[in-house]
Amino acid sequence: MPRQGIALVLSAPSGAGKTTLVRKLLTEFPHIGYSISCTTRQPRAGEVNGKDYHFLTRATFERLRAENYFAEWAEVHGNLYGTPLAPVQDTLHQGRDLLFDIDVQGAAQLKLNLTEAVFAFILPPSMLELENRLRARGSDDEATINVRLDNARKELLEAHWYDYLVVNDDLDKAYEALRALYLAAGLESCRNPGLVETILTA
Amino acid sequence: MPRQGIALVLSAPSGAGKTTLVRKLLTEFPHIGYSISCTTRQPRAGEVNGKDYHFLTRATFERLRAENYFAEWAEVHGNLYGTPLAPVQDTLHQGRDLLFDIDVQGAAQLKLNLTEAVFAFILPPSMLELENRLRARGSDDEATINVRLDNARKELLEAHWYDYLVVNDDLDKAYEALRALYLAAGLESCRNPGLVETILTA
Repeated sequence: MPRQGIALVLSAPSGAGKTTLVRKLLTEFPHIGYSISCTTRQPRAGEVNGKDYHFLTRATFERLRAENYFAEWAEVHGNLYGTPLAPVQDTLHQGRDLLFDIDVQGAAQLKLNLTEAVFAFILPPSMLELENRLRARGSDDEATINVRLDNARKELLEAHWYDYLVVNDDLDKAYEALRALYLAAGLESCRNPGLVETILTA
Repeated sequence: MPRQGIALVLSAPSGAGKTTLVRKLLTEFPHIGYSISCTTRQPRAGEVNGKDYHFLTRATFERLRAENYFAEWAEVHGNLYGTPLAPVQDTLHQGRDLLFDIDVQGAAQLKLNLTEAVFAFILPPSMLELENRLRARGSDDEATINVRLDNARKELLEAHWYDYLVVNDDLDKAYEALRALYLAAGLESCRNPGLVETILTA
């Protein structure tokens, strides 16, 4: 029996450094897959159906949602987004790992549908440091920064139910932590059915 | 509130390479402590009471055992050995990590008394390879090797309830795995009470 794939779910407030950490992880472990989401929004230039997203009509999306087709879904700026459950489960059963870069609401839905997923929350070292980072980016006006900080506070209040907390104070240390929890997940007994039996008979 | 210390419990059959892996872990992370056991056996030359063991009379050991003083205990070759629970809990509450290098029976008792301990089982890649390693050591006669192999089979049948399985095929890879699960344990939410609250107010 192959090792069960890891569903690694990462959440973080904007400015915590998740994108950089995810990029480092996928560079070191290029076999980690990304699940392809469904959306009702229009494709942007260059986006390919079935690669970037599965582009669906709202009617189709709503029918699939009613059939519990999605592991999680959300409506953002009037468009529906969802993660199909069955392809995710198939991938994991084949022993392939999947990364989910997702907000706390989506993660909470995944927790109900993918009970063996690993949930990690990436934290800034302090709210003050998060504010400094958002200002240093120079890409947001004052009002947007305040909205992001408000959202960050709300998101951090959900961090307690995640399996792992990774504080991104120093990027190298935070990456070592993320790497360690990913490697540890692959060693969990529940993800290695039949391993002991194979060793006993070999 | 400080991070809760990790109780890392390692078991392995003789010949799986646990001693080498433990030495590497304690060299890289010298702050990891070892709990001092109690025993009724006589001190050997050079052994210091309170450092190598707490040497107790059988009467004292049995009285303490009756008072549930021990997190685990066992009788080996007519001598009693036990791990005191209260000092272990104090050390963990202070945020200091402790390693337990212990057999499956002792580990099973620890699981009842230290519910947040992390249990890792170190496995040989196959029974054949374990046999080859035991022969290559050249320190055991045929009968002893057969006893060790029988014991290994019995111990492996308990590996399924450990949190993590580490196959020691290649020493560097096995050490990376052990290191990862130790680091991951320190990131678990349950071991970092108050971390999110601290970040929210800083």
